[in-house]
Amino acid sequence: MSNLPGIVITGASGRMGQMLIKTVMASDKCTLVGAVEREGHDWVGRDVGEAMGGAALGVLVTDDALEAFSHAQAVIDFTAPEATLAFSALAAQAHCVHVIGTTGMSDTQIAKLEPAGRHTTIIRAGNMSLGVNLLTKLTKMVAQALDDEYDIEVVEAHHNRKVDAPSGTALMLGEAAAEGRGVKLDDVRESGRDGITGARKQGDIGFSAIRGGDIVGEHDVMFISGEDRVILRHVATDRSLFAKGAVKAALWGQGKKPGEYDMMDVLGL
Amino acid sequence: MSNLPGIVITGASGRMGQMLIKTVMASDKCTLVGAVEREGHDWVGRDVGEAMGGAALGVLVTDDALEAFSHAQAVIDFTAPEATLAFSALAAQAHCVHVIGTTGMSDTQIAKLEPAGRHTTIIRAGNMSLGVNLLTKLTKMVAQALDDEYDIEVVEAHHNRKVDAPSGTALMLGEAAAEGRGVKLDDVRESGRDGITGARKQGDIGFSAIRGGDIVGEHDVMFISGEDRVILRHVATDRSLFAKGAVKAALWGQGKKPGEYDMMDVLGL
Amino acid sequence: MSNLPGIVITGASGRMGQMLIKTVMASDKCTLVGAVEREGHDWVGRDVGEAMGGAALGVLVTDDALEAFSHAQAVIDFTAPEATLAFSALAAQAHCVHVIGTTGMSDTQIAKLEPAGRHTTIIRAGNMSLGVNLLTKLTKMVAQALDDEYDIEVVEAHHNRKVDAPSGTALMLGEAAAEGRGVKLDDVRESGRDGITGARKQGDIGFSAIRGGDIVGEHDVMFISGEDRVILRHVATDRSLFAKGAVKAALWGQGKKPGEYDMMDVLGL
Amino acid sequence: MSNLPGIVITGASGRMGQMLIKTVMASDKCTLVGAVEREGHDWVGRDVGEAMGGAALGVLVTDDALEAFSHAQAVIDFTAPEATLAFSALAAQAHCVHVIGTTGMSDTQIAKLEPAGRHTTIIRAGNMSLGVNLLTKLTKMVAQALDDEYDIEVVEAHHNRKVDAPSGTALMLGEAAAEGRGVKLDDVRESGRDGITGARKQGDIGFSAIRGGDIVGEHDVMFISGEDRVILRHVATDRSLFAKGAVKAALWGQGKKPGEYDMMDVLGL
Repeated sequence: MSNLPGIVITGASGRMGQMLIKTVMASDKCTLVGAVEREGHDWVGRDVGEAMGGAALGVLVTDDALEAFSHAQAVIDFTAPEATLAFSALAAQAHCVHVIGTTGMSDTQIAKLEPAGRHTTIIRAGNMSLGVNLLTKLTKMVAQALDDEYDIEVVEAHHNRKVDAPSGTALMLGEAAAEGRGVKLDDVRESGRDGITGARKQGDIGFSAIRGGDIVGEHDVMFISGEDRVILRHVATDRSLFAKGAVKAALWGQGKKPGEYDMMDVLGL
Repeated sequence: MSNLPGIVITGASGRMGQMLIKTVMASDKCTLVGAVEREGHDWVGRDVGEAMGGAALGVLVTDDALEAFSHAQAVIDFTAPEATLAFSALAAQAHCVHVIGTTGMSDTQIAKLEPAGRHTTIIRAGNMSLGVNLLTKLTKMVAQALDDEYDIEVVEAHHNRKVDAPSGTALMLGEAAAEGRGVKLDDVRESGRDGITGARKQGDIGFSAIRGGDIVGEHDVMFISGEDRVILRHVATDRSLFAKGAVKAALWGQGKKPGEYDMMDVLGL
Repeated sequence: MSNLPGIVITGASGRMGQMLIKTVMASDKCTLVGAVEREGHDWVGRDVGEAMGGAALGVLVTDDALEAFSHAQAVIDFTAPEATLAFSALAAQAHCVHVIGTTGMSDTQIAKLEPAGRHTTIIRAGNMSLGVNLLTKLTKMVAQALDDEYDIEVVEAHHNRKVDAPSGTALMLGEAAAEGRGVKLDDVRESGRDGITGARKQGDIGFSAIRGGDIVGEHDVMFISGEDRVILRHVATDRSLFAKGAVKAALWGQGKKPGEYDMMDVLGL
Repeated sequence: MSNLPGIVITGASGRMGQMLIKTVMASDKCTLVGAVEREGHDWVGRDVGEAMGGAALGVLVTDDALEAFSHAQAVIDFTAPEATLAFSALAAQAHCVHVIGTTGMSDTQIAKLEPAGRHTTIIRAGNMSLGVNLLTKLTKMVAQALDDEYDIEVVEAHHNRKVDAPSGTALMLGEAAAEGRGVKLDDVRESGRDGITGARKQGDIGFSAIRGGDIVGEHDVMFISGEDRVILRHVATDRSLFAKGAVKAALWGQGKKPGEYDMMDVLGL
């Protein structure tokens, strides 16, 4: 038996679930010990590797999450808000680190994680990429250091299937910039310029959204003065980026005190 | 006396007029022979160099355009539509090349240039930069060569005083892309993405506008597929760019047959 | 039986061979009819899909290339120069289009393709990407249109395993720029600036090479004046790009007269 | 008489000297009280505004630096190492803040500033741009936060008259990255890739230098992994940037304790 931390992946059959399974398998710092799908899913009972169309991995897909968690050191969970709340209670019961990449959780749902956070280590982030979290931190710093002679623009690019604009990450970066300046993003946000806009208002934070092809995700935060520009840029080139960040979080969480953490904690920022 | 082509600048006191005067003075291929302002302007009668706050240039500002044009080989004119129409008649009378960088002319006004074009050489362009005109040509070619698996996005950046979006040049590039694909820009134009946009429609041409600092003008035309991107980019770094293009047009026009030309003709594209 | 053109892939077990097989399988415009490996290779006799670690595809790997070619409309070949020469004779015998992506062929080896080119359609290119070939064409045009007040710089970026600099594609772009200007690249090439270089020589074409991570391949051709820049940029984001270009070439070659072609012909440039 | 801090500019006739004079004149936070040139220079005794080809400014160019410094609160000095050492003694004598943008000072020369630094406030920086200094700080932070799975590349672009590569600022950024990683730049520096380089060595810091047109100065620090990139970018678009930074330093220095400072202190980083 391996002494490496054992990881369970929920939502195993989804695009992100499969990416997580491959990432855990490829890591030499942890081992795959479970794969969870909902009751009635046709993967349940099958070897997860074979279900993914490849070689057997020796791990059967199960719909008994608690049983799976009880043999694991961490569960990585990119599912849906209600499922995540249920998993959170089970992870607490199993004393298993719970890494949450689920998006779209309401403030009420987030508040419901609190009891679980008293018993286990929860690491939750809207974007699991170390680079994006680092960029957020830097954005706040630069916005603090430079005055509003610098116009701030956030430009993001994503694939042509994305249905909203600006991206959640672009807004997160805009929030960081606004915070650095001591203003509220809602008061200075300018998105979707088109037509007669008038001159740019000093202090505004502008957003632009580029859509095309299969772009994984690119974000530029620009600080533009009459004489220079400081640009902070993150380019995701491979979707495994987010899976790798989640695995890094799962490993970082080993031995930490119960509580709620985010990727800034993982990065030590 | 110099044998170089003599140039007259209209609207001599304006920002663009002064830029044109400096550009003609700096050129070793032409010479400044006149500077025109409207009747009653306080520069009239003064040496134009001194009026600009520098050394005397030996050229007095005049409000008698015809007299000035009659001693010149070309007039460069970045003024306003009605003034340009009046200058056009005078340039025709003086058999003087008329380079027109005036923007905002209506179709009716443009049609009124036709009689003058029978007597003299008119070169008119919305953007006098050689690079931008070249980019327009390339954009059409690439749009023809690549099918609509490539999503087209036009991204432009300008200074924070600009009051409209997208820029006229961005729209010119979008027109060229649409023409290359055999569609109408109005049918596929998507500007100002914001909120729930839905997935990108295949064949759309998207526009984004960045505003900040003192950016002279930057335009990217992106062709984005699932596997690659072709990007055509123009960056203006110095406003004298447009003045230099106008002077190049004035020189190119020497000895040409009367008629209406644009920068594509000057470039030989 | 399908009426779609049947494709054979040589070097089936290699990284590029497997990418080609996946690309042909994913296309609805052609079908996989053969997979070739050298005599003695342990894939010979196995189903190629299973050998690649996936589901069976109903195509056995063979070491009898002629037999495979005789049932195909095209062979796609990214192997090695000597193997390619041998395949070329067999493709001619089988009247099968031969798409050659093999790199490192000497002039002598290229000359040896000539007899085969009398009997079949050969399409050979150092870079099968439509975008890169398009960029090469544009580079020559822009170099012709702009004089040497524009400094030309070629900047490329590749993954950290690449062992040479500048990339072959960067040099191809540099050749196109030199050709556009009517000079020889060898006379104006400036690579690897470091230390006291002196001022840039007018007319030089500079090269820079960035190396890092898993960058698939990015090329910028910059034309830089004192007032503006024209930049032609290609970014490969997915290695299947080259396989897709090869399949496109194989389809384009159907029904063409025997002879030697390149990707410019396929693009219709 | 103005109550604003009075500034003296040394090397008044040089390109940077004239830029500094214009910047001080344009500021509403300080006033020009002196302009120094070396003995025998033909500007000595003339009004500095007229000598620059514009309107009189009421300040005569002098070769008596001590006399000029004694009526000033700060001297801004972008001259040459030996001149700067001489000015430093005089500034100390006059109790006048000494802002030093002079480049190329040896360690021995820098050490000689120490006595002056006991009597007055010296602010010295290789690059007076706030943005570049901020970028240096960020570079060190990011290099600390990301491990060496991220390849670091520094890419800079400058005008075609620059005689050395990489730029001093690029090396400063490389030093910051090396410091963040706890290594010495000399041990990991890789500049001027050309020819058969072999695969990139893990931990190396690469440098590329682009030269063309009139580029003021652009620096990218790239951290590149197999899945993403973090890029820190500074673009100088107007040479007055460095003059503005120097004036900001002169103002910041008012009322500070004697000693040697740099732009990090001015920025409060």
